[in-house]
Amino acid sequence: MRSTSRTETFPAHTPAASQIFTTVLSHGPLTRLEAARRAGLSAAAVTKAVRPLLADGYLVEAADEGARPALGRPASLVRVDGGRALFIGVKVTGGELIGVLTDLCCRIRLARRVPLTDRATRAVLASTAELAHELLVEAEDFGAPVLGLGVAVSGEVDRAEGAVRYSPFLDWRDVPLAELAATTTGLPVTVENDVRALTVAEQWFGAGAGLSDFAVVTVGAGIGCGLVVNGRVVAGAHGVAGEIGHVTVDPAGPPCHCGNRGCVEAIAGEAAIVSRIREATGIPVADATEAVRLAHQGVAGVREVYARAGEAIGRGIATVANLLGPERVIISGEGLAAYDLFAEQIRDAFTAAAFGSAARCDVQTRPLPFEEWARGAAATAIQSFISSDHPHLSR
Amino acid sequence: MRSTSRTETFPAHTPAASQIFTTVLSHGPLTRLEAARRAGLSAAAVTKAVRPLLADGYLVEAADEGARPALGRPASLVRVDGGRALFIGVKVTGGELIGVLTDLCCRIRLARRVPLTDRATRAVLASTAELAHELLVEAEDFGAPVLGLGVAVSGEVDRAEGAVRYSPFLDWRDVPLAELAATTTGLPVTVENDVRALTVAEQWFGAGAGLSDFAVVTVGAGIGCGLVVNGRVVAGAHGVAGEIGHVTVDPAGPPCHCGNRGCVEAIAGEAAIVSRIREATGIPVADATEAVRLAHQGVAGVREVYARAGEAIGRGIATVANLLGPERVIISGEGLAAYDLFAEQIRDAFTAAAFGSAARCDVQTRPLPFEEWARGAAATAIQSFISSDHPHLSR
Repeated sequence: MRSTSRTETFPAHTPAASQIFTTVLSHGPLTRLEAARRAGLSAAAVTKAVRPLLADGYLVEAADEGARPALGRPASLVRVDGGRALFIGVKVTGGELIGVLTDLCCRIRLARRVPLTDRATRAVLASTAELAHELLVEAEDFGAPVLGLGVAVSGEVDRAEGAVRYSPFLDWRDVPLAELAATTTGLPVTVENDVRALTVAEQWFGAGAGLSDFAVVTVGAGIGCGLVVNGRVVAGAHGVAGEIGHVTVDPAGPPCHCGNRGCVEAIAGEAAIVSRIREATGIPVADATEAVRLAHQGVAGVREVYARAGEAIGRGIATVANLLGPERVIISGEGLAAYDLFAEQIRDAFTAAAFGSAARCDVQTRPLPFEEWARGAAATAIQSFISSDHPHLSR
Repeated sequence: MRSTSRTETFPAHTPAASQIFTTVLSHGPLTRLEAARRAGLSAAAVTKAVRPLLADGYLVEAADEGARPALGRPASLVRVDGGRALFIGVKVTGGELIGVLTDLCCRIRLARRVPLTDRATRAVLASTAELAHELLVEAEDFGAPVLGLGVAVSGEVDRAEGAVRYSPFLDWRDVPLAELAATTTGLPVTVENDVRALTVAEQWFGAGAGLSDFAVVTVGAGIGCGLVVNGRVVAGAHGVAGEIGHVTVDPAGPPCHCGNRGCVEAIAGEAAIVSRIREATGIPVADATEAVRLAHQGVAGVREVYARAGEAIGRGIATVANLLGPERVIISGEGLAAYDLFAEQIRDAFTAAAFGSAARCDVQTRPLPFEEWARGAAATAIQSFISSDHPHLSR
C-alpha cells in the first residue's frame, strides 16, 4: 500500500474542482446545489467536478435525513469520506517531535511523541523519519494510503520552496527541509510555519471555516498570530507575517529578545511572566505551570503580572483588529492554562484600544491540546494534496 | 453624448477578460503572450478576451518598436486607449470638494475645486452634482463619454453598499451616498474610503502596480493606511481597516480623540504637532504650514516635535510590516511637506522595530498633490467599470 501512496494524485484537476471539494470538506455534507452556492459556481460545474471524486471514493453520497421532503426522494447530499486517505503531521519543538496520523477530514487517529536530544538538522530529520515510519506502519491497520506529510516549525518558513529560512530556537538557517524529509520518508512533504499551519487547520476544519477574515493568536512560550485576509493565509513578502509578539505595547517596558522594549512577547510570553513573578515575589519559580499555581494560590503580586500580560495581549489583538478588521480572533495556545488569570484584562484592553467598528470583532478562545500543532501540520499536507500544490516529492 | 454614457457597459464579460484588461492597464503595452503570462491565463484565453476590447476601442494595437526582430514583422502589442472613456473623481474634504476628470488610464485631464460651506448631506450632494455637471460639460471637448463617478470620503465606508457608515469629520452616519449621488448626477457612482481609494490608484496605476502585498501610509491631518494583501485591498469585516493612526506607540503618551493615549495620530497628526509646538515654544502656531516654517527657521524645540512624530510613524509602519510583511510601504499625504523634518526618524524607528526579514520592506515616499485624492476616487470608478461591479446607478 505504501508504494502506491506516493504516486496517488487527487482527481480534481481544475481549481473549481479543488474548491468544491474544499467547500464540502469544510462545511460537511452538502447538496450539490448548496455546494455550488457556497463555492460561487454553477450547478453544472459542481456535477461535473463531483463525478470523478465520487468514482475515486473521495466523496460519497448520503441521504439528507434531516431534510426529508414530505413527498419524493430525500435530497442527495455529498460528503467527504474521511477514511479514504491518511496524512501525517509533525510539529518540531525544542525538546520533542509530536506526530499525528489524521484522516482526510483532519481527524486525529493516532498521536505519538519522540524526544529530541539534538536540534541539528540531521538529527531532527532522522527522528522525523523514524516517527513517520512508525505512523506509516500503524497506518496499515486503517486500510487507506498515507498521501502526505506536513511538518510545522516555528520561525520563518518559505512554504512554496519547502525551506526553513530561519528558526531561532532550532538555530537553523536556509534548511531545504521539505526536500530532505521527502527523501528520508518517501512521502510528499509540506513545510509550514507552525502558527500558520494551525491557522490552516482553523480555516479548513475549525473556528475559521467559512470566514474570509480572521486571526489566530497563540499564547504560550511565544505570542504568535496567523492571519487570514480575503480568504487566504497571509505569508508576507519576505517570510515574516503575524508577528503580534513584537508589536510594541510599551516603549518603556522590559527588553525583548528582538532588541526592542515592551513587545507583547516581552510582557506576556511565558519566560517574561516567570521572570517577572520571580522579581515580584522572590520565589525561584521554575516554569509557567508553577507560575499559574502560585497565582491560583493567591500569592501576592502574581496576579498583577498576569493582569499586565493580559493587557499586552489585548492591545496586540486590538492592533490586529484596527489594521485588518477581522470577523473573529481565536485565542489559543498552551498559555490558555492561565486564561482565567488574564481573560478579563485581554477583553478590557481589546475593547479600549479597538477603533470604532473594529470592536465588533468576535474574540473567542479555543483550548489547544499540544497535538493540535501537529494536526495543523497535517492540515497543510491535506491542503497541498487537494490544491495540487506540488509539495516536495522524494526523488 | 452624456445620455449614452450612462448605459455603456464594458465589453469584458468574464473575470478573465477583466483581468487581462487590468493587466494591460497596469503594465502598459504588452504582447498577448506577455499579458497571458502576467495574468496566469492561456494565450487562447487572451486572444479571445482581447477581440471585443479591440472592436470597441478600449484596446488598440501598437507595434513594438523597441523589440523589432531582425527578420519578420515586429511583435504586436496591445495597449489601452486612455482616451476611449472618461471618469470623474471627487474627494470630499471638510472645507471643499476637489474634482478631477481623468481618462481611462487615470490620467488627470482637468481639476476643479468648489468650496463647501455646509457639511450636511444635502449640501454636499448639491455641490457634488454641481461639480460633476461642470466637469461633464467640459468633458464634451474630449470626445469621449464619461462612464462613472467615484467619491472618496474619510471614515467608515461600505463600498459594496455604496454607503458612508460613519464619517466623524462630516458628522455623517449611514448615508446611502452612492444612490443619492447617482440620482443627482445621472452617473454610475462608486463610494470608497479616501485612503483605500488612493490605494486603488497606487495598485492599478502607481507604485503598487504588480505587487501583491503593499501598504500606503498617508501623513497629514490624520495618519491613514491602505493595505493590499494577496493582491486585494483590505476592507475589514466591519468597515474598519488600516487604522495605523490608532496603533498605540506610547501608552503614557498624549490623549487621542479616539479615547486612548499615545496613538500614532495623537503624536504625528498635524493637530498634535501644532499643539505640541505651541506648548514647547509658547508661539501661537496657527497651522501645519507655520509649524514647518518654524522648524526650518530652527526655532528651539520644534524639530524635536517632528522627530517624535517621525518616530511614531516609523513604529506604526513597523507594526504593519511585522503583521503583514508587505513588499513595499509608500508614504504619502500632504504631511510630506515636513518630510525632511522626520524622514530620518521614520526610517530609524522602522528599522529598529521591524522584526527579522520584515525590515527588508522597501519604504519609499511619494509626493501627493491634493488632486491625487480625487484621482483615487476616479480610480475606484474605473475599477468598478472594468470589474462590472455594478456600482450604484441612477434610477
